[in-house]
Amino acid sequence: MLLERARAEVDPVLRAAIGSLPGPMRGVALHHFGWEQADGISADGGSGKAIRPALVLAAAAALGGPEARAGAARAAAAVELVHNFTLLHDDVMDPDTTRRHRPTAWTVFGDADAILVGDTLHALALRLLAQDPHPASPAAAARLADCVVELCAGQHADTAMERCAPGEVTLDEVLSMAEAKTGALIGSACAIGGLYAGASDEEVAALDAFGREAGLAFQLIDDVIGIWGDPCRTGKPAGAGLAARKKSLPVVAAFASGTPAAAELAELYARTSEKEDLDDIAPIVERAGGRDWAQDQAADRMARAMQQLARAVPDPEAAGGLLALAEFVTRHSN
Amino acid sequence: MLLERARAEVDPVLRAAIGSLPGPMRGVALHHFGWEQADGISADGGSGKAIRPALVLAAAAALGGPEARAGAARAAAAVELVHNFTLLHDDVMDPDTTRRHRPTAWTVFGDADAILVGDTLHALALRLLAQDPHPASPAAAARLADCVVELCAGQHADTAMERCAPGEVTLDEVLSMAEAKTGALIGSACAIGGLYAGASDEEVAALDAFGREAGLAFQLIDDVIGIWGDPCRTGKPAGAGLAARKKSLPVVAAFASGTPAAAELAELYARTSEKEDLDDIAPIVERAGGRDWAQDQAADRMARAMQQLARAVPDPEAAGGLLALAEFVTRHSN
Repeated sequence: MLLERARAEVDPVLRAAIGSLPGPMRGVALHHFGWEQADGISADGGSGKAIRPALVLAAAAALGGPEARAGAARAAAAVELVHNFTLLHDDVMDPDTTRRHRPTAWTVFGDADAILVGDTLHALALRLLAQDPHPASPAAAARLADCVVELCAGQHADTAMERCAPGEVTLDEVLSMAEAKTGALIGSACAIGGLYAGASDEEVAALDAFGREAGLAFQLIDDVIGIWGDPCRTGKPAGAGLAARKKSLPVVAAFASGTPAAAELAELYARTSEKEDLDDIAPIVERAGGRDWAQDQAADRMARAMQQLARAVPDPEAAGGLLALAEFVTRHSN
Repeated sequence: MLLERARAEVDPVLRAAIGSLPGPMRGVALHHFGWEQADGISADGGSGKAIRPALVLAAAAALGGPEARAGAARAAAAVELVHNFTLLHDDVMDPDTTRRHRPTAWTVFGDADAILVGDTLHALALRLLAQDPHPASPAAAARLADCVVELCAGQHADTAMERCAPGEVTLDEVLSMAEAKTGALIGSACAIGGLYAGASDEEVAALDAFGREAGLAFQLIDDVIGIWGDPCRTGKPAGAGLAARKKSLPVVAAFASGTPAAAELAELYARTSEKEDLDDIAPIVERAGGRDWAQDQAADRMARAMQQLARAVPDPEAAGGLLALAEFVTRHSN
């Protein structure tokens, strides 16, 4: 309900921004958002759950009421545009072929178009803020630009880790990477909502910390679902990350466990053949404690997120929207 | 002299922005700017001629004097960051192996790093403007973001044209592409300088038109130098564009000439073998009138640029800096 409401407030801004793109690039963007098929036929579905814009709006409402929420629609759209720009680029680099149950943009339009349309979404995000007369917009733009640097650093660390042997990656490194890649933008979404409500520096910092912790919980659960979840719900083939030997959080935790199952896992990961091992890997990660660790960590992060939320928004009633969204992301992902 | 002065004013802002990047991405950026070798040893040379930031500063000075010029240093650095972000991405897509006499970033660090560091330079550009207290900074940021969309559309058209047979591309199409890919940012640089001088909408529009015409002249001359120039000066292998069957402006003009040399060129371009034809192609493009057409067009564009400059800055003495830069770019390129 919270998400549908946010989508209804943000979609018109998003569609107007994307509608301003030159023809061929607009088509790529509409396809990426699930609003158009590759052949130009209009479609409806699968532009993601809009968690980040919902957090911008909920944070603005929590500290500034309905008026602040209404004023933050452009900022919420800007955050969603940044999220989608990074998805387009990450899919080229990783290279991932499926997202939100559809083929990724680069598989349909080629690498160059996916890179260019990512660049234009990035520009549209910052244009929305530059043209927003709200007094918070320059601070929001600076924060969002900083966040892009952190997102890129996270993606850089992720691709660098893919080249390492599993034993060379520590749990701290992979947690830092996840914080940069996922926590940073969720934190920024909350912080930007606070800025649009005229929040104090302390409140904005607490909102950022709330989002980062909730984002890390989100990533931990997303990794668990990626290995043990239902592919019909995730929109990605089951075990795709395992097949690509991805160093997801549960896998690195399993490697670091020092259990006999960890040694077994290392042996299996070292093999080059892929498909036939898939069914074997998940139970070993589980036996090595990777699944339990991830779920405990997620619960721990959520507890910390709640502490930060109480600092930022002491009134439990006002904090309700943010709380509901944070709990939503630990139950669903993507 | 004008360029050295601009570099001295802008480099500290650029270096501070790049210095704020996380370690591994900073190294890629420093290499791209020619400030560090791939092994981390500091280097000095070849970060380009800084024509775009020089135009920002000269336009600000032309309409607002030394004070406006001094206030526009961040905006000038932002324009140079956007230029370099697009170079990093274009080099991945094209794919070009040499720029400014050095190997391109993707050849040294890989595609993913070149894409990510391009993204961070884009973010740094818009962060500089978001954090700039100057009253013109929001309008400059919106204009720069619009320009990124146009740059991407130009690059999109360029890569799409590479897939066409030469006879399928019209001179108008390739001129539009060149205006988007080169004219737009040079026009924006001049317009942003005007904004920082508090110029009127008419003056800003004339400055933009001045820059676009001068930029197109620049591109025409750059294409001529790319085919007939000295590789020691251009920093690119002679005839690289011809070898890749690039549809540069002189080549498309030659194809469209209807001369016997045009038919000869079509026959030669259709062949798949590359190296041995290089020495043959340039004289045919010349006989088909491609070189003369490009030089006439460049002169024509420069005349139009001068008209726009007179509209924007009627005082010839105040216009001197912009005039000198525009003439500089038609004699030198890159």
